[in-house]
Amino acid sequence: MTKNRLILGIDIGGTNTKFGLVDEAGEVHYNGRIKTVSYESPETLASAIHHRLNEFALQKNQLVGIGIGAPNANFNTGNIENAPNLTWKGVVPLTDIFQNEFQIQAAATNDANAAAMGEMLFGAAKGKRNFLVITLGTGLGSGFVCNSQLLYGHTGMAGELGHVIIEPDGRDCPCGRMGCLERYASATGFMITVRELLEDSTKPTQLNEIPQSELRSEHVSQAADKSDSLALAAFDQTARHLARGLATAVAISSPELIIISGGFSQAGELLLEPTKKYFEEGLFPAFRNTVQIDHSQLTSRNAAILGAAALGWENIR
Amino acid sequence: MTKNRLILGIDIGGTNTKFGLVDEAGEVHYNGRIKTVSYESPETLASAIHHRLNEFALQKNQLVGIGIGAPNANFNTGNIENAPNLTWKGVVPLTDIFQNEFQIQAAATNDANAAAMGEMLFGAAKGKRNFLVITLGTGLGSGFVCNSQLLYGHTGMAGELGHVIIEPDGRDCPCGRMGCLERYASATGFMITVRELLEDSTKPTQLNEIPQSELRSEHVSQAADKSDSLALAAFDQTARHLARGLATAVAISSPELIIISGGFSQAGELLLEPTKKYFEEGLFPAFRNTVQIDHSQLTSRNAAILGAAALGWENIR
Repeated sequence: MTKNRLILGIDIGGTNTKFGLVDEAGEVHYNGRIKTVSYESPETLASAIHHRLNEFALQKNQLVGIGIGAPNANFNTGNIENAPNLTWKGVVPLTDIFQNEFQIQAAATNDANAAAMGEMLFGAAKGKRNFLVITLGTGLGSGFVCNSQLLYGHTGMAGELGHVIIEPDGRDCPCGRMGCLERYASATGFMITVRELLEDSTKPTQLNEIPQSELRSEHVSQAADKSDSLALAAFDQTARHLARGLATAVAISSPELIIISGGFSQAGELLLEPTKKYFEEGLFPAFRNTVQIDHSQLTSRNAAILGAAALGWENIR
Repeated sequence: MTKNRLILGIDIGGTNTKFGLVDEAGEVHYNGRIKTVSYESPETLASAIHHRLNEFALQKNQLVGIGIGAPNANFNTGNIENAPNLTWKGVVPLTDIFQNEFQIQAAATNDANAAAMGEMLFGAAKGKRNFLVITLGTGLGSGFVCNSQLLYGHTGMAGELGHVIIEPDGRDCPCGRMGCLERYASATGFMITVRELLEDSTKPTQLNEIPQSELRSEHVSQAADKSDSLALAAFDQTARHLARGLATAVAISSPELIIISGGFSQAGELLLEPTKKYFEEGLFPAFRNTVQIDHSQLTSRNAAILGAAALGWENIR
């Protein structure tokens, strides 16, 4: 085996942390997974990852940097700042901790920004200078690439499309405001819509057969695949809101491509097809037919590791 | 006089075209004005400006470039594209025309982007890497600077904050959609609000004494200065909408400064003070206390020329 230079890409999630060794071409040479919640401190997590890397016979100087995607991670400071989904509270000096452990350069950003980096270096946005990535999961994350650079802004926290208000006086958001995009266009928002429709609608629907406490978005997708009209209405409403948020993003940043990724994007064409329709109709005319919307081309298994590794590669350039 | 290198900055408006010779420090060494509408073609306008520059004894090689701010001008193409306020219709190859006339490099962008360039090189945003400029006039223009670069996007037309929908199913917009920010937060939007308030309100107001056809925003400012409650309500509503649009811009781009300029910004604190209040209240919490809102520091007389010239300077760097 040739001695490729490698970046350690780490994706820290609330439950699991995935990591991998990734070369400059985006090939993953090793990957591992440990339980984030098993580690009381980020220092012990860093040390555990270091230990696990012994399984892979890294040669001297082969590891050239570290990239980390983590909730609420700030690229400018390298800190995780008050992440509600992590057991580590307050401000965590994440890049410092990993630099100390590995004695090598580290950079960190949030999951959506890391996803955008991954798409730019290894995915559907290769060679594109202006694009954005939307991650649909529990919430809605976004990473904007403008002029081939990730948009971090003054605070390092730019790209909060999920907290653009698209419905004034709309649904309450945990951020303390009302009508944020992610209260409509995310797995969580989608399920609120489904429940609202179940309460208000008199339409027969197979979703009534599932106890509400057990109802998940996958059930709704399955029902929609069988043309269940309530399930289709839920996708339609979600698409309408998502499209409105995307049109706002385009009016400001004028990308050529929007990549939809994240767990909830697995709904596939059920979500994408109506989103494209409402998006094109709702765009400011000057931007019509200038933006492509597509799924991520990265296999979801490795996407987060590739994103984190891409950040690491960018950081040492 | 020392032989400064100079840029010709040109601001093409629907009625007047202003131009000036600007050095690298932002000093205007000469300025002129001609009527845009007197010139049947952009070629004759370019030639007229060239002729007028004879008044200024330019030395050989002293003029090093041209920057142009014009409605609907696209930086990527150098064209004016279907500007509704100009008599020249269709696609005008603006930079080609000026390059032919002057045999020197020319760049063009829209007025709001030029204003942002002017602020970055010569104004309140000197040394700032992430900021945006809002121009409030007949419409609402915006120029985003991210990481010290103007945001042009894939199409060259990024920064259309005026056409972000902030009120779904709101006021009709000439763009064919409904609820665009500039239908509320601009001189035009403000006067619509005033007229709505005059129709709906039973409050006594001194604005009733002015025939509606003669009523202008300056009258409303004067009334507000005298605590006219209807006039104050109009500013309050306008500020609320503007603040909502600014919060959207911040969620995406996270600037450290927002500069409010343009004719309607002359309303000063009547608009700025309630805007700041609603803005701070309505921001996504992570961005609170990270953004300053301020007026332009450039004298309005020269701001447009300085903006165009700044584009010219950036273009030859």
